[in-house]
Amino acid sequence: MMITMTFSEVGDPTPPLFVLGLGLIGGSLIRGATAFTEVSGWSPTAATRDAAAADGFTVHSSLEDILDAAAEQDGLLVLAAPLTAFDTLLPRIAERAPTVKLTDVASVKAPVADQVAELAPEVRYVGSHPMAGTQFSGWSAGSAGLFDGAAWVTCLDDDSDLTVWGDVAGLALRLGSRVVPTEAPAHDDAVARISHVPHLLALALAQVAQAGGSLAGSLAASSFADATRVAATRPELIRAMCEANGKALLGVMDETLGLLGVARGSLASTGSLQKLTSGGHEARVAFEHRADSLIELTLSGPDLLDQLISVGSAGGHVAGLIGADDDLRVRVWYPSEA
Amino acid sequence: MMITMTFSEVGDPTPPLFVLGLGLIGGSLIRGATAFTEVSGWSPTAATRDAAAADGFTVHSSLEDILDAAAEQDGLLVLAAPLTAFDTLLPRIAERAPTVKLTDVASVKAPVADQVAELAPEVRYVGSHPMAGTQFSGWSAGSAGLFDGAAWVTCLDDDSDLTVWGDVAGLALRLGSRVVPTEAPAHDDAVARISHVPHLLALALAQVAQAGGSLAGSLAASSFADATRVAATRPELIRAMCEANGKALLGVMDETLGLLGVARGSLASTGSLQKLTSGGHEARVAFEHRADSLIELTLSGPDLLDQLISVGSAGGHVAGLIGADDDLRVRVWYPSEA
Repeated sequence: MMITMTFSEVGDPTPPLFVLGLGLIGGSLIRGATAFTEVSGWSPTAATRDAAAADGFTVHSSLEDILDAAAEQDGLLVLAAPLTAFDTLLPRIAERAPTVKLTDVASVKAPVADQVAELAPEVRYVGSHPMAGTQFSGWSAGSAGLFDGAAWVTCLDDDSDLTVWGDVAGLALRLGSRVVPTEAPAHDDAVARISHVPHLLALALAQVAQAGGSLAGSLAASSFADATRVAATRPELIRAMCEANGKALLGVMDETLGLLGVARGSLASTGSLQKLTSGGHEARVAFEHRADSLIELTLSGPDLLDQLISVGSAGGHVAGLIGADDDLRVRVWYPSEA
Repeated sequence: MMITMTFSEVGDPTPPLFVLGLGLIGGSLIRGATAFTEVSGWSPTAATRDAAAADGFTVHSSLEDILDAAAEQDGLLVLAAPLTAFDTLLPRIAERAPTVKLTDVASVKAPVADQVAELAPEVRYVGSHPMAGTQFSGWSAGSAGLFDGAAWVTCLDDDSDLTVWGDVAGLALRLGSRVVPTEAPAHDDAVARISHVPHLLALALAQVAQAGGSLAGSLAASSFADATRVAATRPELIRAMCEANGKALLGVMDETLGLLGVARGSLASTGSLQKLTSGGHEARVAFEHRADSLIELTLSGPDLLDQLISVGSAGGHVAGLIGADDDLRVRVWYPSEA
């Protein structure tokens, strides 16, 4: 469904924000967005609500209260709760704010889109994933600058409401992020490749080194520390992130195990690791030499959503929305040949 | 075979050094050791010999010449050539300097020990592996400080000559390294765990990310860069290092693939990654919290070689040889509980 829009509808200004969950991400959102829009939040934990209120933020006393306010003001509701709470929260949203503009910030997108479609089918949903974080969590860990320079993925499909996308994109841009438009399954596949499988390999490496005893541990140097760094992340966070993305992750694990299995077979039979070393080296060098240049695009016509998705598929990051009538003009960092 | 020794025999002073091969490692050795002993070198490449001589170092004009000099002065001959040249060089050593004190600096130790036993059976050999390097190679890449702070593995077995070990250990210590005594197969297993398998996983990761196209590449951030950094190493160096250690590497690859395969099965069947995440996290935290304390040990008796090997097995790094009559007193950095 194409929505005709004007400049003022494309994320300018940011509508009032209503943030459900005041942990690292929600707490950082409320702190950062306060500079440019009305923002309020809610947490199921009384101590967190008190801490946020003590820090001067507007906090709703109940879930009903924040949902009613979001519905009444046609605000943007941000689901910043743990993924495990979505099953409980989405039916409440459907009940109190059935057609609200909704986004979420979970690290997996296709399963959430399915949940939203099932449990809150009338909301105007655009999923998002700000790829920012620290090793800390909770209200006290949040900061207004958390999203500065981060990639903020936004997920579109044929039914997406471009006005809501504009609201989410505008929010992300004002927080200093670059906006990556894509489809939910493409997001889940990409993060399996660049984050989830890397976490699993780091965990396996750490165990394999430990099995080598004190000698191996004492010979491990900075390159080993680099290779295993993400294994230091809290295991419950790694599990939550990877297990929620199980479907995409399985496919990418099989691809990875396939490459390594072929290399193992080649080493055993011919003594050669030529294929893995040359392919992997070439891929790493290409990654290193990535360079972006800023270009300006005008998207228009009935397939505007598809054009926007293509921006993300091509590795583009939207750095600015520069106005539109029926068109959408975007400023994009595009990968260029090095 | 136990060698009775006196303090003056335990690596003090360093005997004259004869360095075969003037690449990164050989070139750094000759530069560094010149401060405390007589040192000379040889390279099969005339341009390299000329460059080293122009920099003021003593360079032999032929292989025969350097081998004759080493034999005559009972010097320590250091095989710093590429592993692929060992087959050619060892018979020449056996011919001109059949009982010379010999070490090498290759990154794999059991296969080299076998080659030496076969091709130069009378030399007094103690294999070593200074775990230092840069991404550069050749004479011009060398520096006197390359070994400062590095772990320098030295390999012993029942037939090792402790005097030669002392010469190698003394050389390493004077160059600023910490000396790790171990057995060749234990070294090869350990480096497969902390270096070779990490290289293969980094190569696979880089390829898997590239297969995700421009979207995946554009979302990859610093943690992905850390995880794949070693895949940027020149592929021929990775191949040479890993393929030479094929036997130990295959075992560790199977262990790694086994861990990942079990995790894959668990994710597919129960949706859980509990085992891999908790085991890997625990191993990484233990690695991070490693702390060393400096202790002094006196090794003595007929099983002195075994005692020395135990120092390395326990994660100890020798930081000083502090004198001996029939005993060997060593100052050791030992891992302590954090």
